[in-house]
Amino acid sequence: MLICETPHAGRDEEQMKKDLDLKLVRNDEPANIRAVMLSLGQAARKAAHLLALAPADAKNTALLVAAREIREKAEKILAANARDVAEARAHGLTDAFLERLTLDAKHVDGMARGLEEIAALPDPVGRVLARFERPNGLIIERVATPLGVIGVIFESRPSVAVDAGALCLKSGNAAILRGGSESFHSVSLIHECLLAGLRAADLPLAAITLVPVKDRAAVGEMLTGLGGNLDVIVPRGGRSLVARVEAEARVPVFAHLEGLVHIYVDRAADLGKALTILRNSKLRRTSVCGAAETLLVDRAGAATHLAPLVKMLLDAGCEVRGDTATQAVDARAKPATDEDWSSEYLDAIISVRVVDGLDGALAHIATYGSHHTDCIITEDNVAADRFLREVDSAIVIHNASTQFADGGEFGFGGEIGIATGRMHARGPVGLEQLTSFKYRIHGSGQTRP
Amino acid sequence: MLICETPHAGRDEEQMKKDLDLKLVRNDEPANIRAVMLSLGQAARKAAHLLALAPADAKNTALLVAAREIREKAEKILAANARDVAEARAHGLTDAFLERLTLDAKHVDGMARGLEEIAALPDPVGRVLARFERPNGLIIERVATPLGVIGVIFESRPSVAVDAGALCLKSGNAAILRGGSESFHSVSLIHECLLAGLRAADLPLAAITLVPVKDRAAVGEMLTGLGGNLDVIVPRGGRSLVARVEAEARVPVFAHLEGLVHIYVDRAADLGKALTILRNSKLRRTSVCGAAETLLVDRAGAATHLAPLVKMLLDAGCEVRGDTATQAVDARAKPATDEDWSSEYLDAIISVRVVDGLDGALAHIATYGSHHTDCIITEDNVAADRFLREVDSAIVIHNASTQFADGGEFGFGGEIGIATGRMHARGPVGLEQLTSFKYRIHGSGQTRP
Repeated sequence: MLICETPHAGRDEEQMKKDLDLKLVRNDEPANIRAVMLSLGQAARKAAHLLALAPADAKNTALLVAAREIREKAEKILAANARDVAEARAHGLTDAFLERLTLDAKHVDGMARGLEEIAALPDPVGRVLARFERPNGLIIERVATPLGVIGVIFESRPSVAVDAGALCLKSGNAAILRGGSESFHSVSLIHECLLAGLRAADLPLAAITLVPVKDRAAVGEMLTGLGGNLDVIVPRGGRSLVARVEAEARVPVFAHLEGLVHIYVDRAADLGKALTILRNSKLRRTSVCGAAETLLVDRAGAATHLAPLVKMLLDAGCEVRGDTATQAVDARAKPATDEDWSSEYLDAIISVRVVDGLDGALAHIATYGSHHTDCIITEDNVAADRFLREVDSAIVIHNASTQFADGGEFGFGGEIGIATGRMHARGPVGLEQLTSFKYRIHGSGQTRP
Repeated sequence: MLICETPHAGRDEEQMKKDLDLKLVRNDEPANIRAVMLSLGQAARKAAHLLALAPADAKNTALLVAAREIREKAEKILAANARDVAEARAHGLTDAFLERLTLDAKHVDGMARGLEEIAALPDPVGRVLARFERPNGLIIERVATPLGVIGVIFESRPSVAVDAGALCLKSGNAAILRGGSESFHSVSLIHECLLAGLRAADLPLAAITLVPVKDRAAVGEMLTGLGGNLDVIVPRGGRSLVARVEAEARVPVFAHLEGLVHIYVDRAADLGKALTILRNSKLRRTSVCGAAETLLVDRAGAATHLAPLVKMLLDAGCEVRGDTATQAVDARAKPATDEDWSSEYLDAIISVRVVDGLDGALAHIATYGSHHTDCIITEDNVAADRFLREVDSAIVIHNASTQFADGGEFGFGGEIGIATGRMHARGPVGLEQLTSFKYRIHGSGQTRP
C-alpha cells in the first residue's frame, strides 16, 4: 500500500526529494496511481478552502519568498536542468524539444521576476464586480471568489510550473501541476522553491502540488477530475496533448487547440503599416500561437499591396505558399494546396490568398479559423468595426501585430494559457479569469411579498 | 429515412403541427432520433451565427410579436393545456405534477408580460465589460458576445419554454428546448407563438427549436452535445433530472442539484427580524429552491431566541425536527436524525439545531450545505461580514429572506435557472451570464518588440 504524503513544513528537502524518487519507483501499478492521485486531489481541495480565505499579504509573502529561493537556488536548478536535458538528449528527443526544456541563468531570473510581478498585482479575490440596490432596499454585490482546484498539465517548459503555480496561488486557487517526465528534476527543484514560499507564509503546502508520478496514467486520473477534487484543467503543450485533454476531460478545460491566425489586408490598408505589422506578426517569433499563418489580401487592393507584401516575406526568409495570383507576383512563391489554409505552421512559412473584399475574408476565416486571433489592416474604420464584430475569435485586432495575443501584453501580469472556448474564460487566461463569484445580499429585515 | 425539417416562414401552422405529430409517430428508432437531433443541432448552430449579429431591434420585435401571439392564442393554449392535463391525469401523475403542468389565464398573461419585460431590458450583447489602454497605445476592450447554442431540458412547467426561449434569444443564443412529453401540446403551441415572433423579425426559426421527439433518447442525444452543436445545457426540473444531466452531460451544465438553505440566528440577532425573516424564508412558498430547510441557532442566544422561533414555526403549521435543545422548548417538536441535516424538504418541514456560535454554524453549513443560498440574522456586522465571506455559497444573505434567491428579485428580468457550480455562471443565471466575451484591440501600427 502506497501512501502519498503531502510534504510538510520543516522537512528536510533532500529527504523529500528521495521520497519523490522512491514513489516513482513504486508507482508502477495503476491502482496505486489512482489512490495517489485521489489523495493529492483531496489534499488540494482542503488547501483550496484555506487559500480562498487567505489574506493577500500571506499570498504575496509566499510569492516573494519563492522568488528569493529561486534566485538562491539558481545554480542547483540549472544543474538539475542539465541532468534533464542530458537524459532527454539520450532519449533522442528533438532539438525543438531540447530548446524548450533548456534553462539558462536568464530564464531562472525571469522566473523570479515573474513571481515578484505577480505579487505586486492587486488581489483578484474579493473584488466587487457589480453592485445594485433594489427598490426594496436590498443591496446586492457580485464579489470575486476563487475557482477551487486547478490542474495544469504541461510538457517541456519548466517555467510553466512557476507561472501556473503563482497565478493559481494569487487567485486563491490550489494548483495540481503535472509536468512532462523529461523536466522532472528541474521542476521538482522549482516546486521546492514554491513550497518554501508557502511554508514561510504559513499556507498549506498542498496549495501547490507537483504530481510525483511519472507514469502517464496520472494524466488520465486528472482528466477524470480526481473524484470531484479538480475544477478545471489547463493543458499547456503541443497539439496532441491539448487534443487528448479536450477529448477526454470530464471537467472544464481552458485551452486552445491551435492558433490559425489570419491577417487581412484590406483595400484601404496603409501599405507601410501592412508591411511592418505583417512582418512582426509572422516572423518576430514563428513558434508562438499568436504568430500569423495566413495572409488574406483584398482583390481590390492586390494590384498595389500583394507584390510588396509577398516580396517582403520572401526576402525575410519566409516560405510563401500562395494561390495563383500570389504565385504570379513572385516566382519564389510556391503553390498552396487546400491543406495550407488549415495549417498552423509555427515556422517561417505563410499561406497567402487573394479574397473578394471583407466578405471574402470573413468567409475564409469562418471556414478555416481557429477562433484564436485574427487581424485586419485598414484605414477604413467601418470595415475595421465590421471585422472586429463579425470575426468570432477570442482576440480581434485592428492595425497591430497578432503577436500581442499574450496575457502579459494585455497587462494581465502573465497568463496560464489562452482559451478559445466560450465558457468562463476566453483569450489570455489571467488572474481575473481564474476567479468565479458569489452574491452578497445586505438586508435590513426584508421579506419577499 | 426521416428528415427533420426546420419549420419555415409562411408555412401553415396546422400543417406544421401535423408534421410534428407525424414525426413523433415515426421517431421510434434510436438511429432516427440521433439523426433528427444532430440535424436540429446543426440548424441551431447556423441560427446562432446569424443571431449573434442580429440587431437589438430585431430580437425585441420577435419578443413583442411572440407576446402578442400568446395573448391572441390564449384560449387555444389553455385548451391544449387541458388536453395535456387530462392525459397526465389518466397516466396517474401526482397532484403536485398536475399543479405544475396546469395553466390558467393568469399564467398565460404572465408569459406574455415576461416576454415584454425581457424585450425592454438592455441588450446584453456588445456591452464593453472592460477597457484598458496599454503603454504602447493599444486600446483593448473586453466585449460581451453570445455563448452559442443553449439546450434547456425541462419537465412539467410549460412556462419554462417562454422564459428560456426569450432569455436565449435576447442574449443572441440559439435555444434547443426539450420539454416533458406530458406538456407537449401546451409547449408546442407556445413554441409556435415564439416562431411567429422570429418570423416577423426575419430571424432564423431554428433560433428557438422545440425538440419534436417524445422519446427520452432525445435527452441522451442532447447530453452528448449534438456533435459539438450544443454549448451548454440547463436542466430545469426535479432532482433526478438534474442529477442525470450533471452525471452524464459531455458539455457544461448550469444547474443546482438542491437548495439546502440554512438560516443562522446569531446571538446578536434582533428577535423580531429573525421571526419575520425565518417565517418568510420557510413558509412563503415551501417548494422553491430558496426556501429555508435548516434553522441554526447560536447557543449563546438560544435562551431568548430558540423558543419563540420554534413556536412561531409550529403555530404556522410547520413541522419541526430538532436536536434535544429544540425538542426541550416545545413538545410538538420531533427529533431530528442525521438524515434531516441533509434533507431538502421542499415542504412545511424544517430541521432545527443549536450550534456553538458562528464557528459552529460555518462548520454545519460546510458539512451539509449545497452551495446555493445561506443567511445570517444578526445586528453584529463583524459576524455578518465573516459569514458572507466564509460561507461558500452562490448567494449569501444578511438580514433578509432566503426567498430572494431569484433572478427576477435580483433585477435580472428573469432567470434561466440558478447555478451552484463555479464555472462561468453562479447564482441566478440571467442575460449577463448567458454571454461570453471577446477582446477587441484597436491599434495604430504597433508591433511587439
